[in-house]
Amino acid sequence: MKKILVINPIATDEWNDSDRRLLQQQTSEDTVIDLVSLEQGPSTIETFRDIVLAGPGIMQAAENESKNYDGIMINCFADPGLEVLRETCNIPVTAPCESSLAFVSLLGLNFSVVATLRKLYPVFETKCLKMGLMRRLNSFRVINLGVKELEEEPGITIKKIVREINQSAVSGAQAAILGCTGMLPFYTEIKKGVEIPVIEPATSALKMLESLIEMKLSYK
Amino acid sequence: MKKILVINPIATDEWNDSDRRLLQQQTSEDTVIDLVSLEQGPSTIETFRDIVLAGPGIMQAAENESKNYDGIMINCFADPGLEVLRETCNIPVTAPCESSLAFVSLLGLNFSVVATLRKLYPVFETKCLKMGLMRRLNSFRVINLGVKELEEEPGITIKKIVREINQSAVSGAQAAILGCTGMLPFYTEIKKGVEIPVIEPATSALKMLESLIEMKLSYK
Amino acid sequence: MKKILVINPIATDEWNDSDRRLLQQQTSEDTVIDLVSLEQGPSTIETFRDIVLAGPGIMQAAENESKNYDGIMINCFADPGLEVLRETCNIPVTAPCESSLAFVSLLGLNFSVVATLRKLYPVFETKCLKMGLMRRLNSFRVINLGVKELEEEPGITIKKIVREINQSAVSGAQAAILGCTGMLPFYTEIKKGVEIPVIEPATSALKMLESLIEMKLSYK
Amino acid sequence: MKKILVINPIATDEWNDSDRRLLQQQTSEDTVIDLVSLEQGPSTIETFRDIVLAGPGIMQAAENESKNYDGIMINCFADPGLEVLRETCNIPVTAPCESSLAFVSLLGLNFSVVATLRKLYPVFETKCLKMGLMRRLNSFRVINLGVKELEEEPGITIKKIVREINQSAVSGAQAAILGCTGMLPFYTEIKKGVEIPVIEPATSALKMLESLIEMKLSYK
Amino acid sequence: MKKILVINPIATDEWNDSDRRLLQQQTSEDTVIDLVSLEQGPSTIETFRDIVLAGPGIMQAAENESKNYDGIMINCFADPGLEVLRETCNIPVTAPCESSLAFVSLLGLNFSVVATLRKLYPVFETKCLKMGLMRRLNSFRVINLGVKELEEEPGITIKKIVREINQSAVSGAQAAILGCTGMLPFYTEIKKGVEIPVIEPATSALKMLESLIEMKLSYK
Amino acid sequence: MKKILVINPIATDEWNDSDRRLLQQQTSEDTVIDLVSLEQGPSTIETFRDIVLAGPGIMQAAENESKNYDGIMINCFADPGLEVLRETCNIPVTAPCESSLAFVSLLGLNFSVVATLRKLYPVFETKCLKMGLMRRLNSFRVINLGVKELEEEPGITIKKIVREINQSAVSGAQAAILGCTGMLPFYTEIKKGVEIPVIEPATSALKMLESLIEMKLSYK
Repeated sequence: MKKILVINPIATDEWNDSDRRLLQQQTSEDTVIDLVSLEQGPSTIETFRDIVLAGPGIMQAAENESKNYDGIMINCFADPGLEVLRETCNIPVTAPCESSLAFVSLLGLNFSVVATLRKLYPVFETKCLKMGLMRRLNSFRVINLGVKELEEEPGITIKKIVREINQSAVSGAQAAILGCTGMLPFYTEIKKGVEIPVIEPATSALKMLESLIEMKLSYK
Repeated sequence: MKKILVINPIATDEWNDSDRRLLQQQTSEDTVIDLVSLEQGPSTIETFRDIVLAGPGIMQAAENESKNYDGIMINCFADPGLEVLRETCNIPVTAPCESSLAFVSLLGLNFSVVATLRKLYPVFETKCLKMGLMRRLNSFRVINLGVKELEEEPGITIKKIVREINQSAVSGAQAAILGCTGMLPFYTEIKKGVEIPVIEPATSALKMLESLIEMKLSYK
Repeated sequence: MKKILVINPIATDEWNDSDRRLLQQQTSEDTVIDLVSLEQGPSTIETFRDIVLAGPGIMQAAENESKNYDGIMINCFADPGLEVLRETCNIPVTAPCESSLAFVSLLGLNFSVVATLRKLYPVFETKCLKMGLMRRLNSFRVINLGVKELEEEPGITIKKIVREINQSAVSGAQAAILGCTGMLPFYTEIKKGVEIPVIEPATSALKMLESLIEMKLSYK
Repeated sequence: MKKILVINPIATDEWNDSDRRLLQQQTSEDTVIDLVSLEQGPSTIETFRDIVLAGPGIMQAAENESKNYDGIMINCFADPGLEVLRETCNIPVTAPCESSLAFVSLLGLNFSVVATLRKLYPVFETKCLKMGLMRRLNSFRVINLGVKELEEEPGITIKKIVREINQSAVSGAQAAILGCTGMLPFYTEIKKGVEIPVIEPATSALKMLESLIEMKLSYK
Repeated sequence: MKKILVINPIATDEWNDSDRRLLQQQTSEDTVIDLVSLEQGPSTIETFRDIVLAGPGIMQAAENESKNYDGIMINCFADPGLEVLRETCNIPVTAPCESSLAFVSLLGLNFSVVATLRKLYPVFETKCLKMGLMRRLNSFRVINLGVKELEEEPGITIKKIVREINQSAVSGAQAAILGCTGMLPFYTEIKKGVEIPVIEPATSALKMLESLIEMKLSYK
Repeated sequence: MKKILVINPIATDEWNDSDRRLLQQQTSEDTVIDLVSLEQGPSTIETFRDIVLAGPGIMQAAENESKNYDGIMINCFADPGLEVLRETCNIPVTAPCESSLAFVSLLGLNFSVVATLRKLYPVFETKCLKMGLMRRLNSFRVINLGVKELEEEPGITIKKIVREINQSAVSGAQAAILGCTGMLPFYTEIKKGVEIPVIEPATSALKMLESLIEMKLSYK
């Protein structure tokens, strides 16, 4: 049995139950998932400001809880706090952007990312560059909906995401990454509309974490 | 339950039982592992010649068997046949070199590889280059023992591998990859002698394959 | 006098005579060209499957014949068998893709490739990456005709190739490579329709091979 | 006249006066320098943890004070808070690591960095990679003294730094960067012992900031 | 006080006065600017031929005058003579292309260049490649006016430049560089029409030179 | 029959006869080689200063003579004047550094260069970078003899070159380039002492030029 702590790096427990349930559905009963959000921090992660403000709260959450867990997953595509938790925790830590880049590198020579807003590009580029995958990036596309708007009209959200993935496929993308963990509820529907493999980042972080726990591998 | 076909890309069933058993130990009962070797092909994979000669047999093995499995793992660090099986099979296919590079990219900024013989370097470099990780390669080190010599004196083999990993750590490597799937039997002992995370490639390919199967992702 | 063995990596002698004659026209009487095709193998090279199936036959042909020659040229833009022949032969070996990339690097800062089918792109990209020329690739374009369709209506084939080269020139390409050795018969006509230098890959491999023989340079 | 706010990203005013004075010496009377440290935060910046903990305090300092200034300089070689201040402020913001990399790129084809501790390398590498200068990095060297130990025995500190710079010059470095703003007090002495140009990062950030102010250029 | 020698690398003194006056306006009275043009050389720099013909004259000008100055600035975006003056002079030498690339690297993740003519691209690419910034180049755009045509109808020139900058911003450029020092007279007007920071190369070279003089840094 | 003009980019006809004879020996009677040196220029090419001073003379030589030739070869490893002749001539132009890099890319994954003096490295690096081959450069080694000293004691010159090539082979180089066309007289002896392929740059430029002439390919 593996015990996993998921940290939602935002100061609201609004999505705690639904996120925990959705993530639990991606794995077996052998994995127990607990999910905490921050006591203090931003309400969403959409700017460098949000990332900075979430930092201390993520460290605090990991410090309070990590002794009871086998691994930690940070539940946001900006991967906030990933470097610092790897430095301070002695259990494996994974995050969605880095994990989905690891999977996509096995699935397609060129890939696209479909994110919420253009202003998230610099955060993504830094990560993609570090992973050595800039050359394989087909395109970074956006649907121009903020995180909180994703759930307003699910049908439209799905349609927009599907359209961007399909357009990237036409221009040569062989796989796509969803650029926001808030797109997980629409994953099943999205896959029905597209013909290239689509990687969901929260599930990617979860699978990578389970593998690292099973292989007993952590950063230090 | 997941059914996985492991292909040993060599024309000998000498290691079929022990490899199957060792791999089964890396996973749960929920995963059933079958292992086949080739009808025709080389006895080990240590040159481009071996890779070419193994190619048709790997294709044949996959064609004969894949319909009964959820995924295929090629059990050799040279990843022979990986591109062609991704082209011809509609289930996920993984291989050790690529998979261990995916894991190492999450575990250390710089990493080393400890392989058997120098002549395998060109095969590795091509792969590492494609994965975008050349810049993060600390060193490619060898112990100057062929695949078949690894098991002759296990104590010496382990000592040589440990020494190379530790030397790479001194020169800055933050993680190491074992550069031959034939080093799996010594993995537990190797880990006792080193202070940086060590990635075993066969287990890496197995975990990546299980994740892809669970996420229902394949190349096409 | 130089004696060159050209290997057509396909199991048909259909093009042996015409290919030998066309290649002989690209050089002087001082070079004697013999051409063999495979006893067993694919009928064209258009997939990774074809490359794998051609491998053993290419090795066999080189092994049977190389002792009577000064150099070997592999006559297919996918460069099948190039690494293995360099490993096993002690005479120079060249192939069209690598050779035309060597020439194009002297002729234009940015270049395009006009190939038959999109599915050949991954084979080309791996090669281009290894040669360090990805940054200078303007575009990889296709005419959507298979190898065997090239000769059906030569006028249309030439028109399509010319159009793609000219479009790449508009978007900045300073030179173009024909991405299939089967385009050699149309080379003279193609050059009449374009304003940038066009590199024919079979001739490139032949010239590189003659130079290596004259300079007495081989891989080992 | 230019008014510059220097933020020492640490929760101690211990070095406020000396740092302000040293920086003022690097410029003319035409530039007025004020220096603030943080109300809350770490006492030095030597880990990712320190960077995360300093983040909110840096934002706060900039928010409180920036309206009275023409530009902001962050006084730490880890460049903490640089991205977020560029996002939130509408005056130019510079930091030492990035600025010294900009200067070194004009002064030497290959360069070295001489820092305090090895654990700072990942922070530097990410920056160097983003600036496109990894290929030109000769070596990242350390003197194994923490920030607070630098001033304990100035003679020894200077000797160690000079030795590392000279060793990098022997192995080909054409210029060197001091990898900690805490080395500013020793800059004059260091330059006497070496034969390649040495770039001091705090002065670099100051000069870059003055230039950006004079050119009326900011991130947005 | 700093004494700066500006070399106009052309054999006409037509722009000497106006260029000197415009550059003096970019700095304080503390900097004295003298400007010389060549005795022999091309009338503008628009080809490799012009660069080669200007070379000896630039060396001569520096040799004749440098002993009376604290630094030299080469006033042309092709940076002619930069390497050789760094080799032969023992005072700092800067040039517009390299200097504006140093500034732009602090101002935007991706940037565009708006130049006069397409044929200048190879000169720029070599420089951008050496600076490690090719990956961050959004686009190299031209207005199809030669240097001497820039001043014919200032209103049209400004309009064309503004249009290209704005189009690059739409496709993601976060900053722009003017690709010709002859655009300096229009800089103020250009900035009024655009929403991203625009870097003027002559001023960039001047600021970089003043900083290097103040920091007492030169190539040797 | 091919008529080739070789330009020795120096203002001495001291080596005209011997160089012409040595180059003629590398090819057949079908190729007629004429060799000219400059009327004005440096006596050797060993600095950026020499390259600048040779520029106008190289242009002049090409302008005076090119109408009578099928191609031009610049006989110096610094490739002076290559870009400008490609711009101004409508026949093929080749040069030793670029041509030997084209050949070495076919002969070894990693290669070394053995040159005369360290100060030539920046010239070489710029070229190697443009050709995309920096990643494959094993090492740039020097024998610390100026061009004119090479012939003083041939036995010592050969011994030093052989030693550097062999040391590079030990550290992984699979091929070597001689980094000065003045080493041509010793080529035969050098090859006897080493076990990896050695590429002579003047012959490389000659062979590349003959191929381009035969293929009727020039830059414009």
